[in-house]
Amino acid sequence: MIIMKPDATEEELTNVINEIKKNGLRADVSRGEHLTIVGLVGDERKVPFSRLALFPGVKEVLRIEIPYKLISREYSKYVVEKDASRVINVKNVCIGGEEPVFIAGPCAIESKQQVFRIAEGIKAAGAHILRGGIFKPRSSVHSFQGLGGIGWEEAEEALLWLKEAGEKFEMPVITEVRGESQVAMIAEYVDILQIGARNMYDQDLLARVARKNKPVLLKRHFGAGIEEFLSFAEYIAAEGNKDIILCERGIIPVGKGKNYTRYTFDLGAVPAIQKETFLPIIADPSHATGRRDLIFNMSCAAIAAGASGLMIETHYSPAEALVDGQQMVTPEELKDIIDACKKIHQTLVSVKKKS
Amino acid sequence: MIIMKPDATEEELTNVINEIKKNGLRADVSRGEHLTIVGLVGDERKVPFSRLALFPGVKEVLRIEIPYKLISREYSKYVVEKDASRVINVKNVCIGGEEPVFIAGPCAIESKQQVFRIAEGIKAAGAHILRGGIFKPRSSVHSFQGLGGIGWEEAEEALLWLKEAGEKFEMPVITEVRGESQVAMIAEYVDILQIGARNMYDQDLLARVARKNKPVLLKRHFGAGIEEFLSFAEYIAAEGNKDIILCERGIIPVGKGKNYTRYTFDLGAVPAIQKETFLPIIADPSHATGRRDLIFNMSCAAIAAGASGLMIETHYSPAEALVDGQQMVTPEELKDIIDACKKIHQTLVSVKKKS
Amino acid sequence: MIIMKPDATEEELTNVINEIKKNGLRADVSRGEHLTIVGLVGDERKVPFSRLALFPGVKEVLRIEIPYKLISREYSKYVVEKDASRVINVKNVCIGGEEPVFIAGPCAIESKQQVFRIAEGIKAAGAHILRGGIFKPRSSVHSFQGLGGIGWEEAEEALLWLKEAGEKFEMPVITEVRGESQVAMIAEYVDILQIGARNMYDQDLLARVARKNKPVLLKRHFGAGIEEFLSFAEYIAAEGNKDIILCERGIIPVGKGKNYTRYTFDLGAVPAIQKETFLPIIADPSHATGRRDLIFNMSCAAIAAGASGLMIETHYSPAEALVDGQQMVTPEELKDIIDACKKIHQTLVSVKKKS
Amino acid sequence: MIIMKPDATEEELTNVINEIKKNGLRADVSRGEHLTIVGLVGDERKVPFSRLALFPGVKEVLRIEIPYKLISREYSKYVVEKDASRVINVKNVCIGGEEPVFIAGPCAIESKQQVFRIAEGIKAAGAHILRGGIFKPRSSVHSFQGLGGIGWEEAEEALLWLKEAGEKFEMPVITEVRGESQVAMIAEYVDILQIGARNMYDQDLLARVARKNKPVLLKRHFGAGIEEFLSFAEYIAAEGNKDIILCERGIIPVGKGKNYTRYTFDLGAVPAIQKETFLPIIADPSHATGRRDLIFNMSCAAIAAGASGLMIETHYSPAEALVDGQQMVTPEELKDIIDACKKIHQTLVSVKKKS
Repeated sequence: MIIMKPDATEEELTNVINEIKKNGLRADVSRGEHLTIVGLVGDERKVPFSRLALFPGVKEVLRIEIPYKLISREYSKYVVEKDASRVINVKNVCIGGEEPVFIAGPCAIESKQQVFRIAEGIKAAGAHILRGGIFKPRSSVHSFQGLGGIGWEEAEEALLWLKEAGEKFEMPVITEVRGESQVAMIAEYVDILQIGARNMYDQDLLARVARKNKPVLLKRHFGAGIEEFLSFAEYIAAEGNKDIILCERGIIPVGKGKNYTRYTFDLGAVPAIQKETFLPIIADPSHATGRRDLIFNMSCAAIAAGASGLMIETHYSPAEALVDGQQMVTPEELKDIIDACKKIHQTLVSVKKKS
Repeated sequence: MIIMKPDATEEELTNVINEIKKNGLRADVSRGEHLTIVGLVGDERKVPFSRLALFPGVKEVLRIEIPYKLISREYSKYVVEKDASRVINVKNVCIGGEEPVFIAGPCAIESKQQVFRIAEGIKAAGAHILRGGIFKPRSSVHSFQGLGGIGWEEAEEALLWLKEAGEKFEMPVITEVRGESQVAMIAEYVDILQIGARNMYDQDLLARVARKNKPVLLKRHFGAGIEEFLSFAEYIAAEGNKDIILCERGIIPVGKGKNYTRYTFDLGAVPAIQKETFLPIIADPSHATGRRDLIFNMSCAAIAAGASGLMIETHYSPAEALVDGQQMVTPEELKDIIDACKKIHQTLVSVKKKS
Repeated sequence: MIIMKPDATEEELTNVINEIKKNGLRADVSRGEHLTIVGLVGDERKVPFSRLALFPGVKEVLRIEIPYKLISREYSKYVVEKDASRVINVKNVCIGGEEPVFIAGPCAIESKQQVFRIAEGIKAAGAHILRGGIFKPRSSVHSFQGLGGIGWEEAEEALLWLKEAGEKFEMPVITEVRGESQVAMIAEYVDILQIGARNMYDQDLLARVARKNKPVLLKRHFGAGIEEFLSFAEYIAAEGNKDIILCERGIIPVGKGKNYTRYTFDLGAVPAIQKETFLPIIADPSHATGRRDLIFNMSCAAIAAGASGLMIETHYSPAEALVDGQQMVTPEELKDIIDACKKIHQTLVSVKKKS
Repeated sequence: MIIMKPDATEEELTNVINEIKKNGLRADVSRGEHLTIVGLVGDERKVPFSRLALFPGVKEVLRIEIPYKLISREYSKYVVEKDASRVINVKNVCIGGEEPVFIAGPCAIESKQQVFRIAEGIKAAGAHILRGGIFKPRSSVHSFQGLGGIGWEEAEEALLWLKEAGEKFEMPVITEVRGESQVAMIAEYVDILQIGARNMYDQDLLARVARKNKPVLLKRHFGAGIEEFLSFAEYIAAEGNKDIILCERGIIPVGKGKNYTRYTFDLGAVPAIQKETFLPIIADPSHATGRRDLIFNMSCAAIAAGASGLMIETHYSPAEALVDGQQMVTPEELKDIIDACKKIHQTLVSVKKKS
């Protein structure tokens, strides 16, 4: 990481960047009010740091060993305020801002009627962003894979429904990208691109999605520690896209004997991650618990833990859903959840202000 | 499980119990307003169920296969209301009642002055129960094991300090029992006996503690699933003592790469356990996170998840503590936590009343 | 699954297949000496089984609920002998045959000289197949990603070296495919396509690789249970490609306190998987342990557990390797390993013959 | 740790030991051919190391930070040869010596006839030590807990059968101690005291068992990492008893989806532990897999990994066993296992001699 002098010229900055590129790396430039810093992207062992320190305009050269430096507070503290978090604006919605954000919608899009009816329901309940799965990752090739599993035309039709429903009910829309070949098409229709937990480690997919310059929602793999989660978010940042929304959605349950939730909802990861990175983090109680009857409490818990928002699978008739019916809530239940979460968020804000 | 007829006589009940004992099992009798049920404790394969069904006064014989039947809602629904939870009264404190309960105090008791000063601080902060470790379970024989590690006299002196501090500041007191040989002495001084996570599987210790007929706080082992946790609570109930307070305190972290919390705080276990058993469950954010800077948020999250209370390690000067200083809060911080938790609890209650 | 009558005609078979396709599924046809069976690929809920049972030539219709039915012994028992395993022939090498197969080579290909020198070394040590990484999956974007991380030309040059080294030393070659966009190029140069542990869940990549009709080596994700591992192998089989070599390479370590191996080598999975599927399974002690000093013993253990072969990272000078030096063995060490493994394999064969 | 000068007198040694005791710690004295070392047992922060360095006869004072120093190779290298392992002699059997040792017998002792018949069978199969459970740790209070679960008289009778069967068939005997109150009685009848996995963390039990001065077999808890396993073995060593046999018996399985073994048999722990400690380590494939059909292969794998022996549950009629029938082998199967294991051990020895 190179810290430029406050009075460094653009030319001096360009010289530094060119030197980095000459060594086969990329440069990540962050401009603060007083300082500009240049992060290195790639294998740092190739860079002659001692030579770079002597370049005109360079104030200081620092080595940051953490693998997720571009998104770390450690790195950003030179250009922004200590506790500042990144706010990601998507149409009329701010993620990571003062209010928690609620993403809702069906697990899988099944028909135009279904997505419109659900969109209407969640809007009335207070949700901000509409989700709907089209390319569903599934553990069995013999399960329903979403409309994307039937064919490209069906997938594109579903994308259009999603986009139109978002427009009609004034919500940005999000869907999951499961493979590199889907990136181009999906990016034309949605506002936020989602990488699912199973694909978190797919670095080529991450890079390709990042280059669309749309916000990316990255779910934590159920086998990933926090350091690995952030290190793969770094693959997106390394492409120059820092509009990344992290999402905790449950990790592999451990413990002898039967468990009673589908995954272990690692809510301690929420504030722990907020100490490490300025990126916003939301939580997904639907996948974490796999149980409709636990979603109210675990939504409240996630907001109390400090999450910037929630993603909650919603369906007007959970019993009829083709996928994941047992973990969906109705729009009416969603409303209660959102109301309670907003109050809990207010409580946190007021206690923090006081202290 | 034997359900007696509403008009069964005491003699008929005694006959049933005797038949059970004759087969080498014990009987757990629960009397409700209208019905009395008799649970079997021990290896059910030895019991002639078909014969028992014919006994006078017996209404029905049911097999409940869950290993924690005595503490299960399934079992208790015949004698109590569906959603009723057990309220455990200790002196002036109700655990599992309408208000969350806060247990606080030092990880390890170090001196009389220390325990009195901390007791005063947590009382002022709003805590209800005073904790203090004397026999500390430690991963290394070369670490400080609490005053109990020095000798029996030191241990007994520390127990006296704890008892006196509890009396002076009007709080029931709790400490951990680590081995069978400590049970008798500790039970003379404290109001609640704690079984630590490392001893959860120690069935002989559980039985011996249970027989003291004092409330028992049982912490979940960090390698135990929910079913195993409840199955070992059943060892206490099987001795006729159902004054059991369960405590979630974090499970083994999984996930490649470094993690940032000491354990994974499994808050989803809180409402999941409440669906299974009528026993109250509290949570311990201090051990779960191992990080002072996460305790405020994770305390709020635990209460939002539905916990009946919290156990929080507290010290007036965390940096000076001989054990676990990095995860202690000050009495001032505890006050903020308790205030926020109470408000969150109110929010949950008001939303539930409305719906 | 549809079992055809022994005397069913080709036309009757075609009718069955067409009916399956009409319902949006694919058919997997296996012909045995006496029976032909047709497996369904896709969402079975869409298929009118009762109608299919009445088709001419159909003997029986069975539902197999396991998610990896196409590769299961349960499914194949109608057409092959009970204990038969699939033998995969690649040039002069049989994987899953009577002798264990040894795959060796560098973690990452660094130069033509390096790959040729290592190829010569492992050939002399008794290895059968040459491996070499070009697109390296890495946890950090700031680490060396293999020559594929530098550019497509460099990647293609490395592929050519690998192919030429294989030809010169008469060994088939294998490398890892990390993303969909790499499939076409890599398939032109190598004999076996490898899917790494991190990509095991990438169903779109699996399908694309499968369609190249070359053998696929699929590594188990470190967070995947056996059922999930086999269910994702099924994604390859569902494309009509059953030349799948499974590979156990270690799973996430659990347990409080420091561990001493990089992953937990789950050797019990080897015989457990062999009871479920007819596919061959090999093991990778290099990644599982991450420790050069454990590889001899754990190689022997894997063969004793019943593995059909091993993949072992080898370098003439481990200390110089750019990636994973701490887990590489030299060709001389490899020779000892192969010699010991062959003797252990002989012991197993002789005991089994006797009993 | 204090290294005494080669010519230090007994008096000088005594002075050092007294100084250690004065500070509330204990001393562990190891005498080698040339050097004597004194290890500190307890909280080292209390010891004035700089003062001790000046004591007459003291050569050097070293701090060893590992929590299992008394059993570590690091510590013992001053008094024994680098690769030497501790050999534990029990009657006619050497554990940790040149040949692998086989411990076999029923999960639970059910009758005199049963234990004698099994003892005869395993002796003929080549086993060296007879096991039999009396106080069975069980996950459910409603399961059969061994004869110890019925009463003390029944337990003592079973201990007598075990002892007599051992005498008749000339094998040392071992059984599990589950609680502190059982130590005295069990120690009168058996040659080796076993601490089961569930009690590994029970430090008071470990200390009490250690003080019986009989060999102790300590099983790894299924939630313990290697460092914790060794740190709890240190509790035994700290009592002056280093006749400790470690036993790997499987850890909590991780991984999404169903698994197919009861635990994950962590065979990589075997050589990893041997690098850390001079204590012998054996393995228990019965509990690790929970599957009779995997025991042959996993026994071979454990010996190939370097284990000094195996503990295998054996019954003449597994289907009749009251506990764990699904994981028992017959004496005939045991014979095949022992034969194969001995050959594999020979192979390892011959390869190691050569290299």
